[in-house]
Amino acid sequence: MSNNYCKIEGGISAPKGFIATGIKAGIKYSNKYDVALIKSEKTAKAAGVFTKNLVKAHPLLLSAQHLKDGKAQAVIVNSGNANACMGAKGDQIALEMAQKTADSLAITLEDIVVSSTGVIGEELSMTKMLPGIESAVKELQQITGKQGQEVKTEHAHRAAQAIMTTDTIIKESAYELKCSQGSIKLGVMAKGSGMIHPNMGTMLCFITTDAEIESVQLQKLLRETVDETFNMITVDGDTSTNDMAVIMANGFSGIKPEGREWDLFSAILKKACEEMAKAIARDGEGASKFIETQVNGAASLEDARKIVRTILSSNLVKSAIYGEDANWGRILCAAGYSGACFDPGKIGVYLNGLQVAAGGQGLKFSEEEALQRLKKDDIIIKIELEDGAYSATGWGCDLTHKYVDINACYRT
Amino acid sequence: MSNNYCKIEGGISAPKGFIATGIKAGIKYSNKYDVALIKSEKTAKAAGVFTKNLVKAHPLLLSAQHLKDGKAQAVIVNSGNANACMGAKGDQIALEMAQKTADSLAITLEDIVVSSTGVIGEELSMTKMLPGIESAVKELQQITGKQGQEVKTEHAHRAAQAIMTTDTIIKESAYELKCSQGSIKLGVMAKGSGMIHPNMGTMLCFITTDAEIESVQLQKLLRETVDETFNMITVDGDTSTNDMAVIMANGFSGIKPEGREWDLFSAILKKACEEMAKAIARDGEGASKFIETQVNGAASLEDARKIVRTILSSNLVKSAIYGEDANWGRILCAAGYSGACFDPGKIGVYLNGLQVAAGGQGLKFSEEEALQRLKKDDIIIKIELEDGAYSATGWGCDLTHKYVDINACYRT
Repeated sequence: MSNNYCKIEGGISAPKGFIATGIKAGIKYSNKYDVALIKSEKTAKAAGVFTKNLVKAHPLLLSAQHLKDGKAQAVIVNSGNANACMGAKGDQIALEMAQKTADSLAITLEDIVVSSTGVIGEELSMTKMLPGIESAVKELQQITGKQGQEVKTEHAHRAAQAIMTTDTIIKESAYELKCSQGSIKLGVMAKGSGMIHPNMGTMLCFITTDAEIESVQLQKLLRETVDETFNMITVDGDTSTNDMAVIMANGFSGIKPEGREWDLFSAILKKACEEMAKAIARDGEGASKFIETQVNGAASLEDARKIVRTILSSNLVKSAIYGEDANWGRILCAAGYSGACFDPGKIGVYLNGLQVAAGGQGLKFSEEEALQRLKKDDIIIKIELEDGAYSATGWGCDLTHKYVDINACYRT
Repeated sequence: MSNNYCKIEGGISAPKGFIATGIKAGIKYSNKYDVALIKSEKTAKAAGVFTKNLVKAHPLLLSAQHLKDGKAQAVIVNSGNANACMGAKGDQIALEMAQKTADSLAITLEDIVVSSTGVIGEELSMTKMLPGIESAVKELQQITGKQGQEVKTEHAHRAAQAIMTTDTIIKESAYELKCSQGSIKLGVMAKGSGMIHPNMGTMLCFITTDAEIESVQLQKLLRETVDETFNMITVDGDTSTNDMAVIMANGFSGIKPEGREWDLFSAILKKACEEMAKAIARDGEGASKFIETQVNGAASLEDARKIVRTILSSNLVKSAIYGEDANWGRILCAAGYSGACFDPGKIGVYLNGLQVAAGGQGLKFSEEEALQRLKKDDIIIKIELEDGAYSATGWGCDLTHKYVDINACYRT
């Protein structure tokens, strides 16, 4: 597909008819961007995927309700406070955020998606949030008046910054797909570095596109893409109350991708989400190394995914990688308790290309050679089974002293 | 039951007709006890519970086979090497260990239980192990010749030391139960500080008793006891390839506990196992705090246990406790992704007696007061649901810088 698409500037504001900004509302203690606003010129088809945690944050419950009709026009997000576990007060705050955004933009309440990330169980200050929304809307109006992609790009960048918590890297991207009738653009921004674990929407991710796509199709595509990308990363095995991925397709390109172009669009969406997922894993709290785990030859897709996720979640594997220790026994052990069915007597293990186990047992290998390979920042753990034709790949990071530092004093 | 039993000296050698010792065979690099031998004067009824990890260590597979007839007479255990993931060679080594023990003690091969713990995937040295078994058997013969419980106690103590790996505390205990016809004794030793997680035998635990109990009954009792004790502790969520709990009942007391005495015996077995389980959690790798989690009012026992285990396994909860941070949001969050069914709107949370959440949301509490309570070494997290009548309790520890230290360089 290499000739048909290219990476472009502009983040989530790259697709036609979308605009975004980030402002400083003072919700975070430090003087940082903490409120992001994304708006489509007209109502877009929309879909969302949400955390599977039984304890769901208030904005997430409201957004799921607003997305039921498969439509949305704007997204309001804050960082610094999760607005979770706050009872009726939390519901009210989420609703007020949506209402204020709707009123200020003069759009329908039900077309607003609300999202929050940060500390759980503390009241989100409306005296900071409401003026924050107002100034975000003003910013949008000012950008709209101006010509030039540069201003839009800069503000999209601010939006991507405004959803960060313990993230150290801004996560945004955009692609353009050449179609027979013109071109489709897709933009994405995401956050996440702790509380990242499969089996859910995983973190915050907002996607915009000017393609014309029906809601049902959009929902199915988003679900499949999330399962292959965000649900295959793990930082600490904790599944947050606030995770969501939302896509809006406003149709401004005038192109409805079908057949081969639909396949290409799906591939680019997956590419963009995988890029974000890897960036989140790489930016895992305290991470010193990025880990990719590949499992081949599994009897089923679910088995392959279970093994990938369990290896990436194992504190013992993660600590060994941090210590640059070729402790393949812990990798086999994690595969063994993953719940997947496989023949332990046929498993092979490779660390950055060096085979360390075959037929379920250790090979003689040079410790010096292993150390050299494990000194790299990117570690690939490859597992070869001989049980079937299914493969899966996932991403994570090592467990470091810094992870403990960050999480021993997050709230205080 | 307080008047009917007392704690006694002697560890696993406390029950009549049992003797044990530990010796230094040089399997561990440092000059430490690393081979333990337990022997009953005659064949005992026996039962075992083993890891649920699909990757099972070689000695464990052999022991499971030997225990099928519900009988055993001796246990040989080494630390320093797990004898796991070694293919046919590993099976052969486990068999040689059993054969050498059987020959040296002049007992039947099938009555030997073999167990190993330590590094996975390295060949266990038979040039060290075989002479080690010989000298352990000689030690046993020398003790047998001597009078006095003191010598037996000292050697039981050595056996308990010989099964330690990263453990910092020797884990052994013994109880005496007064029955109408005399008394029954029970001894226990255990190891475990890393790779500890529910859903399996959990670690190594050996139990001896001079009660007369049928194998089937013994197996059922051990299974139930392990589920309530060892399966309710977690250190790092990793489930080892080598975990087992084995009980031997040689009948030397001449007492077959029935009715109320059976209940008392079961209660003491549970007490002894709970004591070991808590000691393991307290000795968790790098632990600075011991955490007990209680869940009350669950709709089912399985729901209660799921919530307990998930809270104790959460890296975010464990890091917060290490940081003495009353981050109850993470506790609710972990309960939410545990897979248990409950009403998040009714949950209450207590940290060392201080209520921090009610009705699923945070209460105003003094941070100073919370900090004072979290400064303690023992932390009790209590969750009150209002969904039913089931309760569960489990034990774990915090996640510290030292855990990362220990596990980043265990193998090297």
